[in-house]
Formats: sequence, structure tokens, C-alpha cells
Amino acid sequence: MLSRANVATFLDQSWVRNGVIGVILFNAVLLGMETSQPLMAAIGPFILTLDKICLGIFVLELALKLYAYRGQFWRSGWNIFDFIIIGIALMPATQGFSVLRALRILRLLRVVSVSPNLRRVVEGFITALPGMGSVFLLMGMIFYIGAVMATKLFQSSFPQWFGDLGNSAYSLFQIMTLESWSMGIVRPVMEVYPYAWLFFVPFIMVTTFAVVNLLVGLIVNSMQDAHAAESNKATDEYRDEVLTRLREIEKKLEERDG
Amino acid sequence: MLSRANVATFLDQSWVRNGVIGVILFNAVLLGMETSQPLMAAIGPFILTLDKICLGIFVLELALKLYAYRGQFWRSGWNIFDFIIIGIALMPATQGFSVLRALRILRLLRVVSVSPNLRRVVEGFITALPGMGSVFLLMGMIFYIGAVMATKLFQSSFPQWFGDLGNSAYSLFQIMTLESWSMGIVRPVMEVYPYAWLFFVPFIMVTTFAVVNLLVGLIVNSMQDAHAAESNKATDEYRDEVLTRLREIEKKLEERDG
Amino acid sequence: MLSRANVATFLDQSWVRNGVIGVILFNAVLLGMETSQPLMAAIGPFILTLDKICLGIFVLELALKLYAYRGQFWRSGWNIFDFIIIGIALMPATQGFSVLRALRILRLLRVVSVSPNLRRVVEGFITALPGMGSVFLLMGMIFYIGAVMATKLFQSSFPQWFGDLGNSAYSLFQIMTLESWSMGIVRPVMEVYPYAWLFFVPFIMVTTFAVVNLLVGLIVNSMQDAHAAESNKATDEYRDEVLTRLREIEKKLEERDG
Amino acid sequence: MLSRANVATFLDQSWVRNGVIGVILFNAVLLGMETSQPLMAAIGPFILTLDKICLGIFVLELALKLYAYRGQFWRSGWNIFDFIIIGIALMPATQGFSVLRALRILRLLRVVSVSPNLRRVVEGFITALPGMGSVFLLMGMIFYIGAVMATKLFQSSFPQWFGDLGNSAYSLFQIMTLESWSMGIVRPVMEVYPYAWLFFVPFIMVTTFAVVNLLVGLIVNSMQDAHAAESNKATDEYRDEVLTRLREIEKKLEERDG
Repeated sequence: MLSRANVATFLDQSWVRNGVIGVILFNAVLLGMETSQPLMAAIGPFILTLDKICLGIFVLELALKLYAYRGQFWRSGWNIFDFIIIGIALMPATQGFSVLRALRILRLLRVVSVSPNLRRVVEGFITALPGMGSVFLLMGMIFYIGAVMATKLFQSSFPQWFGDLGNSAYSLFQIMTLESWSMGIVRPVMEVYPYAWLFFVPFIMVTTFAVVNLLVGLIVNSMQDAHAAESNKATDEYRDEVLTRLREIEKKLEERDG
Repeated sequence: MLSRANVATFLDQSWVRNGVIGVILFNAVLLGMETSQPLMAAIGPFILTLDKICLGIFVLELALKLYAYRGQFWRSGWNIFDFIIIGIALMPATQGFSVLRALRILRLLRVVSVSPNLRRVVEGFITALPGMGSVFLLMGMIFYIGAVMATKLFQSSFPQWFGDLGNSAYSLFQIMTLESWSMGIVRPVMEVYPYAWLFFVPFIMVTTFAVVNLLVGLIVNSMQDAHAAESNKATDEYRDEVLTRLREIEKKLEERDG
Repeated sequence: MLSRANVATFLDQSWVRNGVIGVILFNAVLLGMETSQPLMAAIGPFILTLDKICLGIFVLELALKLYAYRGQFWRSGWNIFDFIIIGIALMPATQGFSVLRALRILRLLRVVSVSPNLRRVVEGFITALPGMGSVFLLMGMIFYIGAVMATKLFQSSFPQWFGDLGNSAYSLFQIMTLESWSMGIVRPVMEVYPYAWLFFVPFIMVTTFAVVNLLVGLIVNSMQDAHAAESNKATDEYRDEVLTRLREIEKKLEERDG
Repeated sequence: MLSRANVATFLDQSWVRNGVIGVILFNAVLLGMETSQPLMAAIGPFILTLDKICLGIFVLELALKLYAYRGQFWRSGWNIFDFIIIGIALMPATQGFSVLRALRILRLLRVVSVSPNLRRVVEGFITALPGMGSVFLLMGMIFYIGAVMATKLFQSSFPQWFGDLGNSAYSLFQIMTLESWSMGIVRPVMEVYPYAWLFFVPFIMVTTFAVVNLLVGLIVNSMQDAHAAESNKATDEYRDEVLTRLREIEKKLEERDG
């Protein structure tokens, strides 16, 4: 009988889970094959049919999960993630929405939501983010300030790089990654504004320093977590034993005095 | 009554603080809008008026702070920071001083001086700097030496990169960031001076190594601070207890002997 | 007598080991000289003869090892490594296989398999890899997803960079290393697809963040190994002594009570 | 009287040390001014005379040190460093040796040998090097192997980058720093040899991984030094006290039993 409990048990069986992973990987290969024009010319309809079957399996799995867990389904971020990814795949991919078709490969990310190992890694990444919130906020401010200043200063002469706020922010991101910052951008700018380095060199130093501080923060946090998780168990046991024995000795001394 | 104490209390209220943050953020958006030419053509005067109102609020806040705290106002670096930023905004921005107009977006940095969270992050950055003083001094020396040597060696053939000390220092900074160092600078130089790599490759190695040491120093310092701040409290309590109990036991043994 | 034990003893003598290292280094110099055309024109046959003698010595050493250790020979990864490297050198290097001739310099890597010091460093590198397995898997997935998406989106307009999956993966690797990512690739792409940065900037952020996490993981692991290996010996001895003495005291107290 | 002891005392006085630092810095400014052609045209002879006076002071100081410490002078690496730097300055700088004239700015490095603070930083750098010896050796081997392979494979088609071993090593160093590795070198090479990425991409991964390991090693070493130097003093004192007290208690218990 297809009771909700039965469906949940069925979905939790390891061969079902592994089967879903298999379908995901097979589908990823199919989507990769779709990028090859000769392959599509030869067996295109076959690939597309298989793709539709895979999608059907995902929809079925999702429907079963929704049936089995109902309200609880939406409590897990990973379920919502699966729902959105499959929703993207179901949207009609007309010619105007070729981007949607490209996004279908995001289905491969479902491997992460299915495999507990990869889930833990990604969750580790995400839990590391809030601790860096203040630094991200500062970086955002530095970028906004930099973009406004660069736009005001260089807009008229270099509209291709600093034409508006978005353009400037992109150019500053490029400069922060140090890609062609001098030969490509700052030297040409300095030919018109000789003191432009007074803006760009400090910008590079400040953003690099902020990135370095993000890195240092990540390392220190990870070290502390690792330190706390591991070495303290042995230490705690030892300390408990020492204190217990000391209390024992005191008690014995007191008993005899009594 | 507008006594100094009353004004200080008023400025410290959370809704006043948050209001000031709101004005700063709103002003930042205005300054961003000023970079858009179509927007300025449409509602330019309106934006500029709002900008002036924001500036008025900042001046008022600063005046109240100066009145409330007088001499003490100047003891906080953040107050001086605010004072300079607002001073820049008040300078007459004639056409010759378009840089001053660009600097007005620095007002957004006032968010840092107002929000205790961001203040702590920036103060953390700044307190990390003195510990790196010696390495910075060394870096400065390496750059000065490098600039003098590069100018003497390559001045005549490559005036665009090594024409004078300033030019050379900028080019060496670019080389230190590894941007186009080889294809853009060193390969062309080596066509005239085939042994130029004997100068540039060691320069890259030494400066990179110095930067790496800065990074290592930062990490080690942060680790030690974190280590000292956290794990030692539990340890200290435990140690105190062990020593107290041991002293107790000794005392009891002595009492009975007496 | 050339018994298996004798041969093993002979191979283990330090002058034999050092002699082999000497031959490897001498052979590396020979292979370096082979790249110089004037040198080959002058004394080419002489160099090639010496090269063959070196190879002969390696083959002899390998044969002796195989004779001495038989089945056990294949238990060490380093022996298999030696076997493959010498096998490559013995393959007939006809003109069509100039790559095989280039691979012969890999013989120099035998220094690693012979010197215990370098062996330890390389083994350290390799043991660090499994701990990073999950992150590598994720990186692989991100690259596959990125390659499929980039191919689908930009294939038609930029076949030289995103023509097929392999091309796209190579271009994305280049972008991950931040080499010419903006000026060389993304800016030209944005001239056709103005929103291309919505794909590339997040890709750079995600891959950089993953690489940073690999680095942090490496540092934390190394720290823990070093920490565990060193500081705990003194601690363990101290703890054992404290617990022993406490037990002694308790025993004495009990004895007297009895 | 100019006895050796008197001269040594004189050289050790702080005003003499600071005076020497002053002369070094003044000389560095002079050497910087020498790079400016208009300045040299105006007051060239004056600058050169001052430069000679500075050099005279250095020679005098060195002579006094040699007189005062004799044999012991050569025991300090920093003294030998000073001796070489001043020796370079004294060499006749004929037109053919313009490099020697450029090297004279190295005199500024004498500030390091005179100031104990900077000396410690540099000594810290240098003591970090031997621990990285094995990794450096491996890097050297990887570069030699890479250079031989690249020369053999790409010599004929790309003599400007891989013409001989030196050329190849330089190009590989550029590739290791990721500068224009793809757009500048590997993409053009792949147009002739489509599989060239099979050589370059692993080369980048291996060298980057080795550099990362150098960095990790540096961090772990610094952490351990810092850890050992600091936190263990308090711990050692505590442990000594616990053990002493435990021994006391045992002794008291035994005394009463006796």
C-alpha cells in the first residue's frame, strides 16, 4: 500500500538513493553530449528522449517526497534546492530562453544534495560565510565607494571601463583580481590622468588586505573548531579524573577526622 | 534645555544613531545616482537638493558632538575621521577640483565610524599593522633600491616604464603583483638587456617571499590572540581548582600532625 | 656468489645507492645537453653513447632488484614508479614518438625514489591529497557544470574558447587562474552577451573560494599533525605521573585505614 | 689613545651607530637624486662629491672595525655583507660596468646590518629557508625536467620561448607565476601542438601545489615556534607546582607512617 510511511521508507533505501545518484550522473553525461553538434546530428532525438526519461524520474522522486513528507519537505534547504533545480528544468525552453536550457546542467548539483559527504563539505563552506559577514560588508562598501569615485573621475574619458556604476564595479573587480590592472587599465588611464595611481594603488592594497584578512579569519576559525573538537576530549577526561581523585582524597581525610 | 549633557544623551540614543546611519546610506545612494547622466538630466536639481539636506544633517550632528564633548571630541580617532570627511564635503567643488567632488562618496565610510561592529573589524585591521612594521620598512627599502637600480639600468631604453624613480616604483609594484610582468615588461626589456632577468626574477622572489611572510605573521598573530582569549579560561579555572584542592589536602594533613 | 640475499645486501650498500644517484644526476645533465643543437652537432654521438651506458646501468640495477626481491619488488609504489620510468626510456623513440624521447628526462625523478629525504616530502604531498578528496570532487563538478553551461551559452559566437566541452574546460581553468580572464575573455564575450559576467564572476568567486578552502584544510591538517606529534609527549608523561601519584596517595590512605 | 679596545668602544656608542645610519640614509637619497637627469645637470658635481664623502665615511668605519676586531670581524655574516657592499662601491665604474654603478644603491641595505630590529626580521627570513630545503630541491628538479621536456617538444616551433634550457626555464617560471600563461604562451603553442595542455596544465598544478606546501610549511613552523615560546612557560610552572605538591603530600603520609 502506498501509505506515506511506506513511501518514505522506500525513498530511504540505499539502492533507491544510489539509483537516483546514478540517474543524475547519467543525465549529466547526456547534457554534456548535447553540447556536441556532430553527436546531436547523429543521435540527437535519442539523447533528448533519454534526457526526458531522466527528468521524469526526478519529477517522480520529487512527487513521492512531497507526498511522503508534506509540510516537513520544505524544512530542509536541500529539498528546496532540489525543487528549484527541477522547476528550472521543467520550464519551457523556447529559443528566447536558451539560458534556461543552459541552467539545466545545474541538475548535476543534485548529487550534492543526495550524497551526505558532499553535503557536509558544502554546509561547511556555508557555515563559514556568516563569520565573514562584517568583512564582506566592508568589501561591499569599498566597492561601492570605489565605483562611485571611479565613475565620477574617469567616466568622460574611459566610458568603456568606467561609464556607469556597474561598469566601474566590474572593472574594479577585475583590478582586485590583479588581471591586466596596470597594462590594461591603469597605464592607459594614467596617460590622461597622471595621478590616477593615487586611486588605484591604494584600492588594490586595501582590497588585497581585506581578502587576506578573510583568509586569515577562515584559517583561525577552522583551527579553533578542529582544536576544540579533537584535543579537548582527552583533556576533559584527564581533568575529570584528576578532580575526582582529589575529591576522593579529601573525603577520606575528612572521614578519618570525623 | 540644550545643556551639554542633554545633547550627549540625545546623540547616544539608538534611534538617533540609526537615523544617522539611515541618512548616510540614503546619501550614498544619492551620490551613486549623481553618476548617472540621464538621471541627472531628469531630476538633477532634486538629487542635489537632497544631497545638501543630508550634508546639513551631518554638519548639525558634528556641531552637536563638538558642543557636547568639546575637548574630548578630538581624543577619538573616529571623530577626527568624521570631521575630515565632512570638511572635504564642505569644500567648494569648482571645476578644477572635480577630485574633491569624487571624494564626497567617502562619506559612506562614516557608516564604519557609527556602527560598532564594523568599527571593531577596521580596528582589528589597524592593530594588525604595527606588528608588520619591520616587514613594511624592509619592503619600502627593497622598493627604493629596486627603483634606483631599475632607473639607472633601463632609464635610457625604456623611459615609459623606468624613466624616473616614481615611474620605476610603479612598474616594480606592477611586477610585484605579477601583472604582465614577463610578456608586458621583462621580455621587451630582455630584448635590449638580455640579462635583465637577473634583476627581475630575484626581485619577484624577494618581494613575494616578503609578502608571504607578512601573511604568515598575520595568521600566527591572529591564532595566538584567539588561542589566548578562548581556551585558557577553562584551563585557568581547572588549574586554580587543582592547586586549591592540593593546598587543602596539605593543610589537613598538617592540621592533624599538629 | 650471486644469491638473492647477497644481491640485496649489495644494492643496500651506501656507495651503491650514492653511485646510482650520481649516475641519475649525470644522466640528467646529458639529457640537458641533448637539447643544445650546437653541442649535439659537435659531440652528439659521444653524448648519446654515454646516455646509453647510463640507461644500461639503470636496467642492470632494476634487473638485480627484481632478482633480489621478486614478488616483494612490486609491493613498493616507488619500485613500480622506477619500472615505468625505465620502461619509457627503453621504448623505441621513432620520429613519430618524439614525446617519448621528451619523457626520458623523467628519469631524473628517480632521485626522489632513491633519496629517503625527498621520498618523505613527496609522500607527505600524496598523503595530503585524500583529505581533500571531497573538495576535488566538488571542483570537478563545478568545472563540468561550468563547461556545459559555457559551451551551450557561448559556443556559437566564440568557438575558439567555448567550442566544445574540452575547450570550455580549458578556458574555465584559465579563468580560474585569473589569467587574462577579463581583458582576454570576458570583456569580448560581454560585447556579444552583455550579461555574461553573471556567469563568469560567480564562477571565479566559487572556484577561488573552493581553492582557498583547500588551502585552509591543508594548513589545519598540517597544524594538527604537528601539534599531535610534538606537544603531546610531554603532556602525556606529565599526566601519567600525576595520575600515578594520586593513586599512590589514595592507596596509602586506604592502607592506613585498613 | 687609539687602542683596539678604545676604537671598539667608540664604534659601539649609540650616537656613532645612529650617525652611521644617518649617513646611509643620506647617501641613499643622494643615489636616488643621481637618477634624475635635470638634477644631475644642475648640481651633478656637488651630489657626486657628497656621495664620495659618504663612501669615505663608510670606508673609515669599516677600517676602524677591521682594526678593532681583526679576526673576529669575519665571524659575523653581517660584517662580511658590509665588506662586500663597500667593496662593490669602490670598484672603478667605467662605462662598461654601468651595472656596478647601479649596484651601489645596495649600500642602503647596510641599514639592515646596523639596525638590530631589521636584522632580526632578515635573520628570521633566512632561518626559515633551510626547513624548506627539500621542497626547493624538488622545485628545482621539476623546473629542470620541465625545461628539458619543453625544449625538446617546442624548441623547433617556438624558439623565442623554448629555444634552449635557459629560455624554457624562464618561460616556465613565467607560467608558474600564472602571468599570461594561457593567452600569451599555451594557446599559441596549442595551435601547433593541440595536446600541449597535457604538459602545461599538470605543470601549473604541480608547481602551484608545491608553492602552497612551502607556504603551509612556513605557517606551521612559525605557529610551533610561537606556541613553544609562549604558552609553555605558564604550563611548565603549573606542572612543576602540581608535582612538587603531590610529592610533599606523599612524603607527609610516609613520615607519619614511619
